[in-house]
Amino acid sequence: MSDEHGPTVSDIGEDALLRRIERRLEGGRGDELWAGDDTAVVAAPGARVLITTDQLVEGLDFDLAYCTGFDVGWKAIAANASDIAAMCGRPAHAVAAVGLRPDVGVAFFDDLLEGLLAASGRWGISLVGGDLSGAREISVAVALTGAPVGAGPVLRSGAGSGDALCITGTLGGAHGGLEILRRGSRSAATEVLVKRQLRPTARVEEAAALAELEPTAMIDVSDGLAVDLSRLLTASKAGVAVALEALPVDPALAHVSDLDPLEAAVLGGEDFELLFTIGADRVGDAVAALGRMGTRLTRLGTIGEGAATLGGRALESWKEKGWQHLHSP
Amino acid sequence: MSDEHGPTVSDIGEDALLRRIERRLEGGRGDELWAGDDTAVVAAPGARVLITTDQLVEGLDFDLAYCTGFDVGWKAIAANASDIAAMCGRPAHAVAAVGLRPDVGVAFFDDLLEGLLAASGRWGISLVGGDLSGAREISVAVALTGAPVGAGPVLRSGAGSGDALCITGTLGGAHGGLEILRRGSRSAATEVLVKRQLRPTARVEEAAALAELEPTAMIDVSDGLAVDLSRLLTASKAGVAVALEALPVDPALAHVSDLDPLEAAVLGGEDFELLFTIGADRVGDAVAALGRMGTRLTRLGTIGEGAATLGGRALESWKEKGWQHLHSP
Repeated sequence: MSDEHGPTVSDIGEDALLRRIERRLEGGRGDELWAGDDTAVVAAPGARVLITTDQLVEGLDFDLAYCTGFDVGWKAIAANASDIAAMCGRPAHAVAAVGLRPDVGVAFFDDLLEGLLAASGRWGISLVGGDLSGAREISVAVALTGAPVGAGPVLRSGAGSGDALCITGTLGGAHGGLEILRRGSRSAATEVLVKRQLRPTARVEEAAALAELEPTAMIDVSDGLAVDLSRLLTASKAGVAVALEALPVDPALAHVSDLDPLEAAVLGGEDFELLFTIGADRVGDAVAALGRMGTRLTRLGTIGEGAATLGGRALESWKEKGWQHLHSP
Repeated sequence: MSDEHGPTVSDIGEDALLRRIERRLEGGRGDELWAGDDTAVVAAPGARVLITTDQLVEGLDFDLAYCTGFDVGWKAIAANASDIAAMCGRPAHAVAAVGLRPDVGVAFFDDLLEGLLAASGRWGISLVGGDLSGAREISVAVALTGAPVGAGPVLRSGAGSGDALCITGTLGGAHGGLEILRRGSRSAATEVLVKRQLRPTARVEEAAALAELEPTAMIDVSDGLAVDLSRLLTASKAGVAVALEALPVDPALAHVSDLDPLEAAVLGGEDFELLFTIGADRVGDAVAALGRMGTRLTRLGTIGEGAATLGGRALESWKEKGWQHLHSP
């Protein structure tokens, strides 16, 4: 988009871009040192540190036909923050390795940096450093640290028989937004879906609130409900029967033609909702706690020792249709 | 290289690759949790944490015409470990975001993973997690944490008038090795250069030994002596006059035809030597300490308040020829 106007990153070169970054990250908090040396120097976020990495690659994860640099930067942070949230953690420090095509506009780069910073600010993250590299496609690999909140971290493996299986928010919206963007058919009724795709929310505050209620297992829904529910159940060696009627399908999906809302809810990725299990007697408290921050909570079922099913069908049979990054379409 | 034989990563898919990673990273140390959940959970390496990221991109940083997956994985860790060493730090935990072309062989992927693990083992790093993504070119973005050794961290900015400017090892070797590989002219006499290019050494043990002698400023030579010396001097608001005769030019460069050894030593990148300043009265101790581990130490000059020169010419005039990733060749 911005590639056609103004100077490109290869026009101004790496040192000039690094100076732009250093200007924006200058200082650091307290005695922390952010950009400008061989590494950043930060305070440990806690005795135990959570650490994760997740990257976005042009063509696969985003397309400049419908994304701004800001969108890409925002999502790169959000996807990582969601992983920290999924451990019932609070994010702390991020570094970003960015690959840039030589013909990318400096304006795009600046916008990308602002997106990284805006999302970092949204979830209390300090973006403390990074790396720039030439490439044939744009990529943003963020690594993010954090610390468990409360007794955490909450693993995928702790779901026990009788626990309630719950999910925050709604499902399928990010996939619906992607469809709208690909078709170029944006409208007021579906703009909420587009926002789910381009400016996703990590459930960081929700995770902190849930930590007090001691969830037993947690994962974020990044690769679709079928895939991520299967991961949680496999890790916990548990089963559950989820009725299709229980799924919090994003209501705006009704405005997308030729798209099955239920399939989007079950298989669509990138909703970044928290899927977790919790003592059945605490569901009410969890609904109330999240309700205070305006976030819906839905109980999907009860963990048992039987099979994993969704709408009466084996979960595995749904999963096979789920998002697999490396399979050709 | 391995792309032509055996299954590709898209044949077996992301989940199968993730299981291969989890098998190799399984367990974790003590109560740490490595791969297999939303994030890794590790012990904080110290009250202050160093954090950095550095990526390798196919075509720019490596070429499968002359690199194995193991080489790529090794170097991705080494480059990051060198940044931690350059703060006088000890590396701790790494995560790797890997982009893979769909046609990359599973054998290449396995080899890459082994290279990441071997280099991690070499410098006491725990590879605790990662991310896989499809891409049109192979990329490996590693993020690495660490902790300062001794009183550190040692920044670029602390060089004071009268300090000795020193460098570990030799210069120009990695660039010479790249030339040999590009020309396809490997021979016994130049194999040491090829090794500098493909299997670089991060000066982690040297940094730990130097920490006791309280160096005043430090940087690693990753983008060439001219560029990195300029960075150290600029940060320290200092000057130095370095004689060309003082440079520890890699002796094996004499065996590379049509290559000026001095130019390789001044401008060649990726040697990953430590360039640092230290009280002039401590140079003898530093030489002895590094000598015990078989590492050469060379004094390049004495920090002053005058101009920065190399061989009588302004350092900036050399620097302009140095490595700039984003400029077209």
